[in-house]
Amino acid sequence: MFSVADHEFMARALRLAELGLWTTSPNPRVGCVLVKDGRIVGEGWHRRAGEAHAEIHALKAAGADALGAVAYVTLEPCSHFGRTPPCAKALIDAGVSRVVAAMQDPNPEVSGRGLAMLREAGIEVVCGLLEAEARELNIGFVSRMTRQRPWVRLKMAASLDGRTALANGQSQWITGAAARQDGHRWRARACAILTGMGTVRDDDPQLTVRGVDTTRQPLRVVVDGRLEISPSARVLGSGTVIATASEEGALSDALRARGAEVWSLANTAGRVDLSRLLTLLAQRGINEVHVEAGRGLSGALFAAGLVDELLLYMAPCLLGSDARGLVDLPELSSLAEKVALKISDLRVLGDDLRILARVVPAKAP
Amino acid sequence: MFSVADHEFMARALRLAELGLWTTSPNPRVGCVLVKDGRIVGEGWHRRAGEAHAEIHALKAAGADALGAVAYVTLEPCSHFGRTPPCAKALIDAGVSRVVAAMQDPNPEVSGRGLAMLREAGIEVVCGLLEAEARELNIGFVSRMTRQRPWVRLKMAASLDGRTALANGQSQWITGAAARQDGHRWRARACAILTGMGTVRDDDPQLTVRGVDTTRQPLRVVVDGRLEISPSARVLGSGTVIATASEEGALSDALRARGAEVWSLANTAGRVDLSRLLTLLAQRGINEVHVEAGRGLSGALFAAGLVDELLLYMAPCLLGSDARGLVDLPELSSLAEKVALKISDLRVLGDDLRILARVVPAKAP
Repeated sequence: MFSVADHEFMARALRLAELGLWTTSPNPRVGCVLVKDGRIVGEGWHRRAGEAHAEIHALKAAGADALGAVAYVTLEPCSHFGRTPPCAKALIDAGVSRVVAAMQDPNPEVSGRGLAMLREAGIEVVCGLLEAEARELNIGFVSRMTRQRPWVRLKMAASLDGRTALANGQSQWITGAAARQDGHRWRARACAILTGMGTVRDDDPQLTVRGVDTTRQPLRVVVDGRLEISPSARVLGSGTVIATASEEGALSDALRARGAEVWSLANTAGRVDLSRLLTLLAQRGINEVHVEAGRGLSGALFAAGLVDELLLYMAPCLLGSDARGLVDLPELSSLAEKVALKISDLRVLGDDLRILARVVPAKAP
Repeated sequence: MFSVADHEFMARALRLAELGLWTTSPNPRVGCVLVKDGRIVGEGWHRRAGEAHAEIHALKAAGADALGAVAYVTLEPCSHFGRTPPCAKALIDAGVSRVVAAMQDPNPEVSGRGLAMLREAGIEVVCGLLEAEARELNIGFVSRMTRQRPWVRLKMAASLDGRTALANGQSQWITGAAARQDGHRWRARACAILTGMGTVRDDDPQLTVRGVDTTRQPLRVVVDGRLEISPSARVLGSGTVIATASEEGALSDALRARGAEVWSLANTAGRVDLSRLLTLLAQRGINEVHVEAGRGLSGALFAAGLVDELLLYMAPCLLGSDARGLVDLPELSSLAEKVALKISDLRVLGDDLRILARVVPAKAP
């Protein structure tokens, strides 16, 4: 169904889409390549919400050459009038002869409509080329559309024996510069960075992307069950959400005066309802959540089955069993209750390791 | 100094030497390739102590073609009459024109003598080609010759959060079949397998090489400070050493009756003197020690600076902070006191990771 040339041009479209990794949210990252007589006549990628889609950039670049061209798109062209006119219509109007899409739109309400519109116009349409790669690129968008919650990636740094800090709390610089810079690149692609009150108290982090050339900063989210955050915490500002299980009071007003939002999300146990928090973040258009929290909140997210991926930096050292552990989980009575993962990527960064592992969902009983 | 062809033939000699990985101890693994007019005319490798050295096998295979040939050897040819006549003399007698050695003999008492004997006979001699690779192949032999102690490789298996077992002790099958089989290959290349009394009590291991086609079994060494081992423990037999800090008594006799040796090695603190144990093992001709012990003995070896290399299998799962840690170290007051490592090899085995990391010796104060 797909030729070698098809693969090459779709791979090119995926690389173009990737250029939007840090800017397109809440929209997906999309690339488009127009090919005529085996030659690229136009290409484009989506930069940010409200601006032109990838197809429109590519059609504009191709001009009259779009007539009879093949369009390679990493996501099904849209069929609806949103902030921009539908791309399917633009492709039809330009007279493309064939459309190759990597994947259908994951939004169940519109999925397949763009391809159908193209087919009805007599255009040859094929879908599914390099689909796995295309889904990976927009894993957060796909998650939000299909599960109504963001993709949750939890970042941790530890010694090889799984220790994040000494018993006395000393933890700075366990991993090296390359790992820390890499961590900022993962922050940059996320729509929100989530942490807990313990981390805010201990480290007073800014939770911003630094050392990476990005035009936007992710939303900052602090889980602060008892609403204890200091109004002078560096994390506060516009673009900060404090999720609490506590009654609102004078502190809420002080936080709002600093530009932050305060969300009251108590569950029946009197703690922050983490699942509901993620649902609300999805409704806010958050595709990927980057968690940098301590062992308590991290463990609670794992225990609640809300973590999708672990991004673990390991420094080549041992700190010993007295040092602080990585995640607090409810005590396991059987190995079958472990958090099962599957390693998807493994590399060396400077002297450190980086392990990317996906949580294997527990089987239904 | 060395041509591309030199590199190729030495690489071949190293691959031959590697064939002796599981059999040559206490001797080093050595390979030899004889080349005449760019063509291999003979090759050989050392199989086991008491049998012919690599050079003799290669000369025999080459016959009259050895005259004027170049000899590639992964270790300086021996110059002394031991169980076999000196290889340097055999190379001289056969009339080789040039000898390329990867490294000098690490034994300070004979180092350089073989090369000198060859030079005195008018043969062109060069040394140092692929030396790092040659040293790695015989890292235990080099350690024994230069430090009078074996190379100590400590094997552990843990979850990604550095846990070896649940709080309740459940630990079987944390890693998968590929990792376990790989572990047996590392056992097979070692001269001794060392464990502690806790492991013997909990798991009653055999500490033998299984699932690997080997002709010899490593010495089994149990650190049993209080001499508590059961006379029916499966680890006992000929080729077992029990290292204790306790007075000998009736149990010692029972252990000896099972074929084991009992070594009394108390230090001033009344514990087994681990450093002295390693010295004695080196005197016994032990090149590489493979440690599979619990967090107590492992931690004690690390704390004493006696571990050279960590072989760590990590299963893609999390067990949580209540589960058992990897190594007990004295509590650290500063990150500078950590056990520093350098990763030398990293790979995926089945679903698991394998990390090989060398201990970075602490700087002198």
